[in-house]
Amino acid sequence: MAIIRSLLDLDLYKLTMMQLVWLLHAGTPVRYRFINRTKGVKLGEAISRKELLRETNAIRELRFTADELAYLGTLGIFKDEFLTALEAFKGLPPVKVVAKKDDQLEIEAVGSWYEVILWETMLLSVVNELYYRKMLATRGMDAKEARVEGYRRLEDKIRRLILEAPSAKIIEFGTRRRFSFEWQDEVVRMLEERLPSGMFIGTSNVLLAKKHGLRPIGTFAHELYMVYACKYGETDEGLRFSHNLVMHDWFEMYGESLSIALTDTFGSDFFFRDMTPAQAVQWRGLRQDSGDPLEFGERAVAFYEELGIDPRSKKVVFSDGLDVDAVVKLEKRFHGRIGTSYGWGTNLTNDLGLEPLSMVVKVVEAAGRPAVKLSDTVGKHLGPAEEVERYKRVFGYSGGLDLECRY
Amino acid sequence: MAIIRSLLDLDLYKLTMMQLVWLLHAGTPVRYRFINRTKGVKLGEAISRKELLRETNAIRELRFTADELAYLGTLGIFKDEFLTALEAFKGLPPVKVVAKKDDQLEIEAVGSWYEVILWETMLLSVVNELYYRKMLATRGMDAKEARVEGYRRLEDKIRRLILEAPSAKIIEFGTRRRFSFEWQDEVVRMLEERLPSGMFIGTSNVLLAKKHGLRPIGTFAHELYMVYACKYGETDEGLRFSHNLVMHDWFEMYGESLSIALTDTFGSDFFFRDMTPAQAVQWRGLRQDSGDPLEFGERAVAFYEELGIDPRSKKVVFSDGLDVDAVVKLEKRFHGRIGTSYGWGTNLTNDLGLEPLSMVVKVVEAAGRPAVKLSDTVGKHLGPAEEVERYKRVFGYSGGLDLECRY
Repeated sequence: MAIIRSLLDLDLYKLTMMQLVWLLHAGTPVRYRFINRTKGVKLGEAISRKELLRETNAIRELRFTADELAYLGTLGIFKDEFLTALEAFKGLPPVKVVAKKDDQLEIEAVGSWYEVILWETMLLSVVNELYYRKMLATRGMDAKEARVEGYRRLEDKIRRLILEAPSAKIIEFGTRRRFSFEWQDEVVRMLEERLPSGMFIGTSNVLLAKKHGLRPIGTFAHELYMVYACKYGETDEGLRFSHNLVMHDWFEMYGESLSIALTDTFGSDFFFRDMTPAQAVQWRGLRQDSGDPLEFGERAVAFYEELGIDPRSKKVVFSDGLDVDAVVKLEKRFHGRIGTSYGWGTNLTNDLGLEPLSMVVKVVEAAGRPAVKLSDTVGKHLGPAEEVERYKRVFGYSGGLDLECRY
Repeated sequence: MAIIRSLLDLDLYKLTMMQLVWLLHAGTPVRYRFINRTKGVKLGEAISRKELLRETNAIRELRFTADELAYLGTLGIFKDEFLTALEAFKGLPPVKVVAKKDDQLEIEAVGSWYEVILWETMLLSVVNELYYRKMLATRGMDAKEARVEGYRRLEDKIRRLILEAPSAKIIEFGTRRRFSFEWQDEVVRMLEERLPSGMFIGTSNVLLAKKHGLRPIGTFAHELYMVYACKYGETDEGLRFSHNLVMHDWFEMYGESLSIALTDTFGSDFFFRDMTPAQAVQWRGLRQDSGDPLEFGERAVAFYEELGIDPRSKKVVFSDGLDVDAVVKLEKRFHGRIGTSYGWGTNLTNDLGLEPLSMVVKVVEAAGRPAVKLSDTVGKHLGPAEEVERYKRVFGYSGGLDLECRY
């Protein structure tokens, strides 16, 4: 059976971004690339081109079903015209795969933004699940054995959260790094069953939200800023303004309902300079995805207070490599000072005793220009050195945090 | 019989802009205001509120007919979805009219950009025609008498053009300042009949293009830059980039076919700094609408040459207060050096011996901010003094030309 069996088995943000792309940028050419940051693991060795293509070909056969479209319609965020477009969606285009023995897996998806945007989380889910199947086989384990440890750890997490951070609002964000679809499904079921009402507020996975009657949660990803930067970045001025244009376009399409802004694409120093007072008032909050979360939270509180906005009316969604310790620490610090929620990924859906991989699928090129990301963590920068330097200059980036020194 | 009898009795650019607005900015609130620059003429005296409202109410009854929509469909520039939206167009909203005795006429149209965008040229056509009816009545003339002089002058224009500027490409641009619809119709008929093939290339009036089998011609107006500047102009950076964003959005929607850029909204100095080399290559040309046209033409030639682009592959559309002398002078200077065409307005459709009015309908407010225009001619600046100064600073505007000194 294929790993991905529905076009809803992805993060909601892929569909919310897809709607914006459909309306405003359907034809913009983009190139996505799979990047394994865990360099020590040679994925070309662990996963064969053939089995990967079997999975991606199965995904390419998928269409949005009437039942799925009806469900999306109930969410109140998709226009009828977009759902009609999804109904006519002809499936994902092929991906290019090179699997080198003793080396990395190379995967690229190329095409118009509208055609290929859904590949990101699906490729990650598939690579992860294939990798862990291989790991289990290598160790002579079966999935059942691994789940024993998984349950033990998950139950420990749930217990600790209830005891140590009872006010925390948890969102399951682990689609891309999940051990397997079945395990993610089980994690969601457990959280729903065990966490007190109000502590588990939803999942980013649309299929699991549908299945478990949860709220699917998500807004947008780095790729939105990155592609806009490519598209309008012929000049430094266009590059500089492209970031705020994302926020304009997003708010125009979704209004307050999905107004949580990702803050670190070109560094959060820039983000806080760039967000206007009107936007600070209008937007519900911010998502923190790299750098020091405590420092970010303090800064968000100060940012709102300086504008005379009560931080408690706003929200920070923490989503960078969370574990229970981080959730507890952040919730203790910020509860009652600013709204918080926790988009919990890898450590939630892939904590069964096997080391998780750090991998991403990123836009590397759009509208004929190389894509760049400047993270709040230096190691997360993406892009050719020359363009990275240009972006640093244009966005006034003064270096990411060194986590070792700051904690 | 009402003056305006069809929603196609307007400049094409209203519909091409409307399509962009429909897709990207439908809900943006705007305020249009009628402005009579001929201050000596007290229009509140010449035109009664009652007769003006009779005309605007007649316009409000108009809908796009099946025949008109089918015609628009043949032009190859409107999406089916937009034509469907036009089919459902519920008519124009009411305008506010104050007619003060011994003073000006005050007219405003307020609403979402999509709803009110068509008012501009229609209001101008109506005010003009009512005014000239009144002028004729005051002088005890009838329209037939006025037309005798009109024909004499028009035939003289045609003769001179054929003799003195046989390479000139003429476009009729006089809808907004026409003496009357009937006279504009007659002018178009005469030009089509008398000018040699290739000299009369079309009209901006969609209804007359349809009637006479001509090409309707137009791209966009100052309002596009002005509303974008309001919408993205909370910050200086947003303001600065809003101009290029118009060009991005326009090119994305229409590609090369309608890629003639209006150049003077914030001064053409800025325009030439702002247009990128890629845009200079992609766009077919430029429209000159204020300042010194000879200087502008020379500058356009130099601009393209510096980029290694053959100016003869590009075009300047001159559209600022042309008469035969200007056409002859410009054509002599630029023929064979850069493509040219002449969008000829007031002096073409309102030259029957009665002094024409200089009046406009301009956006004065959008997205909650006052609108500003910086023309290449100082007297044409629009907006509150403080915002005009801000725009001058942001766009590096160094003062318009003093026509008296430069000619």
